[in-house]
Amino acid sequence: ELVARLAARQRGDLLAGRQVLISAGPTFEDIDPVRFLGNRSSGRMGFAIAEAAAEAGASVTLVAGPVNLATPAGVQRIDVRSAREMHAAVLGAAQNCDVFIAAAAVGDFRPAEVALHKIKKRGDGGLSLELTQNPDILADVAALPRRPLLVGFAAETENVEAYARAKLERKRLDLIAANQVGSGLGFEVDDNSLTLISADATLRLPTAPKRELARQLIDVVAQRLRDRGTDNGAGAA
Amino acid sequence: ELVARLAARQRGDLLAGRQVLISAGPTFEDIDPVRFLGNRSSGRMGFAIAEAAAEAGASVTLVAGPVNLATPAGVQRIDVRSAREMHAAVLGAAQNCDVFIAAAAVGDFRPAEVALHKIKKRGDGGLSLELTQNPDILADVAALPRRPLLVGFAAETENVEAYARAKLERKRLDLIAANQVGSGLGFEVDDNSLTLISADATLRLPTAPKRELARQLIDVVAQRLRDRGTDNGAGAA
Repeated sequence: ELVARLAARQRGDLLAGRQVLISAGPTFEDIDPVRFLGNRSSGRMGFAIAEAAAEAGASVTLVAGPVNLATPAGVQRIDVRSAREMHAAVLGAAQNCDVFIAAAAVGDFRPAEVALHKIKKRGDGGLSLELTQNPDILADVAALPRRPLLVGFAAETENVEAYARAKLERKRLDLIAANQVGSGLGFEVDDNSLTLISADATLRLPTAPKRELARQLIDVVAQRLRDRGTDNGAGAA
Repeated sequence: ELVARLAARQRGDLLAGRQVLISAGPTFEDIDPVRFLGNRSSGRMGFAIAEAAAEAGASVTLVAGPVNLATPAGVQRIDVRSAREMHAAVLGAAQNCDVFIAAAAVGDFRPAEVALHKIKKRGDGGLSLELTQNPDILADVAALPRRPLLVGFAAETENVEAYARAKLERKRLDLIAANQVGSGLGFEVDDNSLTLISADATLRLPTAPKRELARQLIDVVAQRLRDRGTDNGAGAA
């Protein structure tokens, strides 16, 4: 028990004084007042990361899409629904953060037009729904003058690591957490497995509860922040 | 307290020996393993009706779309996701029921094709999503040889009573519960107001918790079943 208390005290210093911004959950895009286009995401991974970051002593802001989850202790939560709302909330908070962990499953597309009243069925015919692209939150955070450490997620059903590595480079991320979805992993479940990929390293975390994976991710993020600090210091010396 | 106990005992006889089938919640139609087309519905109204029907002594089957709600005591629950899954579950249970209360917000449309793998963004362009119509659950239950009493719902953002009356006639329902959605009423909230419309009567229930509205709806349904029993008896005599 003493060991656990000491470990907890150590963890409580890992991100002391750091501002951590996390996005979590899905985004929903309204088609009309009744219908929407959604992404599958329980938000559990992002909420677990927010909890782990707060335990590690960080000041945590959590931008959450529509989910049914309690706010972790000590975390400041901003609720949003659409990708554009999430974009605005994240960009507003990102100016002053040290790390942005983009765990939300943001919809790439939204309906080109939103109907003010419920669209009525006409006859037996189909319907063609025109979609337009949403803003790229990670790209816009990466373009900020004071760019935080950027951690992305890649949830894929196939070729996960290859897609993740391509996204890491394309979006100039510092770290990407790749996870296979489908077959009982990833969405709307408690267990998950993650592969953490950076330009110079690949770390496979075996299947574990999301809380445990979140702690391991926060450990890696804390290490990266310390390395960055040292690099900056060395550069200025 | 004696009055409450007597009232509860009376309520417990209202639907004794009756088979009540209720659909509740939204349906979600997968576009690919990550994206889906959804309907806004918390399922609370349908779950409240299932609870009220069980309290009234009925044998209750609840076909539920994707919601985060506990199953009411004594209710048999079947979980589904898409409109076609809901159609199959309802038709399977409807053969032997006395009443079908269609409280689910069933999606009218589903993607014409479901992608087995996550659809990737290509360039900055939009996307056109082709939709096809889902089966009409109420119409197919109405066409059963032993047609149960049919209760529909009409959730509309405008002209609620006119739309509801048209739906009552078009789908040959016995009763329709009309409710205005938007402005803090209807979806994802605890309070609601309903107008119960039949061929010969209109009953406006003022804004109240969904549980209270559910009890009033069950009272009306029980009365309709008794009337139908009497009519049948008179016809045979």
